[in-house]
Amino acid sequence: MRVAAGQRLRVVDVEGGQVADTFAFRADDVSEYQSAEHTRVHVNRLFPRPGEHFVTNHRRPILLLEEDDTPGIHDMLCAACDPERYTGLGVEGWHASCQENLQKAMAELGVERIEIPQPINLFMNIPVLEQGAIGWEPAMTKAGDSVTLRAEMDCYVVVSACPQDIVVINNKQPSPVAIELL
Amino acid sequence: MRVAAGQRLRVVDVEGGQVADTFAFRADDVSEYQSAEHTRVHVNRLFPRPGEHFVTNHRRPILLLEEDDTPGIHDMLCAACDPERYTGLGVEGWHASCQENLQKAMAELGVERIEIPQPINLFMNIPVLEQGAIGWEPAMTKAGDSVTLRAEMDCYVVVSACPQDIVVINNKQPSPVAIELL
Repeated sequence: MRVAAGQRLRVVDVEGGQVADTFAFRADDVSEYQSAEHTRVHVNRLFPRPGEHFVTNHRRPILLLEEDDTPGIHDMLCAACDPERYTGLGVEGWHASCQENLQKAMAELGVERIEIPQPINLFMNIPVLEQGAIGWEPAMTKAGDSVTLRAEMDCYVVVSACPQDIVVINNKQPSPVAIELL
Repeated sequence: MRVAAGQRLRVVDVEGGQVADTFAFRADDVSEYQSAEHTRVHVNRLFPRPGEHFVTNHRRPILLLEEDDTPGIHDMLCAACDPERYTGLGVEGWHASCQENLQKAMAELGVERIEIPQPINLFMNIPVLEQGAIGWEPAMTKAGDSVTLRAEMDCYVVVSACPQDIVVINNKQPSPVAIELL
């Protein structure tokens, strides 16, 4: 959806245990978008805390993490799932993916050409273990848990309920995510 | 430089304590490039170990981390430094940056339009601390330490000796990096 600067939106994990891949692009120039690697440098963390910003690849604030009533476990290390991911996991034929969901949503908004940025993987539970290993764990969110974001510039925000049903991140039962414009 | 599939190159920290931002683009389609977020998923780690691959945004191997005779501390979390980074650090006017070095090198190779990917920050010392904080520490490499990479497809590889002299990552004394085509 298109969100104006200052508008707030709530991303709700309706049934719990569901990852929500979230993307944000500047509305008047989609080559500027929320960038995980610039955000990490901006906040000196793997993921912002409430009151901190996600920034773009031009280091400008695009979204504020205003409230977080979840256990506070989110990911910004793992690429969106895509057709190649499912092929690599042994899927034959088509499988829904966050990348395709993003491309479809942006096309419906009239934007055909976009880069695929590292998403803000809300509710995703990817612990950093010893020696730089990363784990893949089920999301810890309960039904109704939510995160509230505020747009800091006019932007397109796309949220994909991750359809991953092979790896355990969604408890192997993908479920809906709701987006409320406040 | 352009590197053919199967060719190997050694990136040498000549004087020690110097970060080398390294980028790789598929030669016949630069919209495919080494992707940190796809590589992390591929190796289930923040950074590959020797014998493991860096993969592209289409999840294809592009570089093999063949040998590593450094302390094994590298980064793939932090964006390349760019003009906005130095402005944010209080620099007035121009400052060299890894982003500009990349753009200049690719332009010399005849490629004007590229995405700026998250680099492979060889030798960069960014520890992940408690509660998801990240630290900025001086590179631990000694003079002559090196990493050997093997190209898995025809690609452009660009290495930028990071000119960061405000944050301590290069011990505030940027120094040369050598690239040897083996």
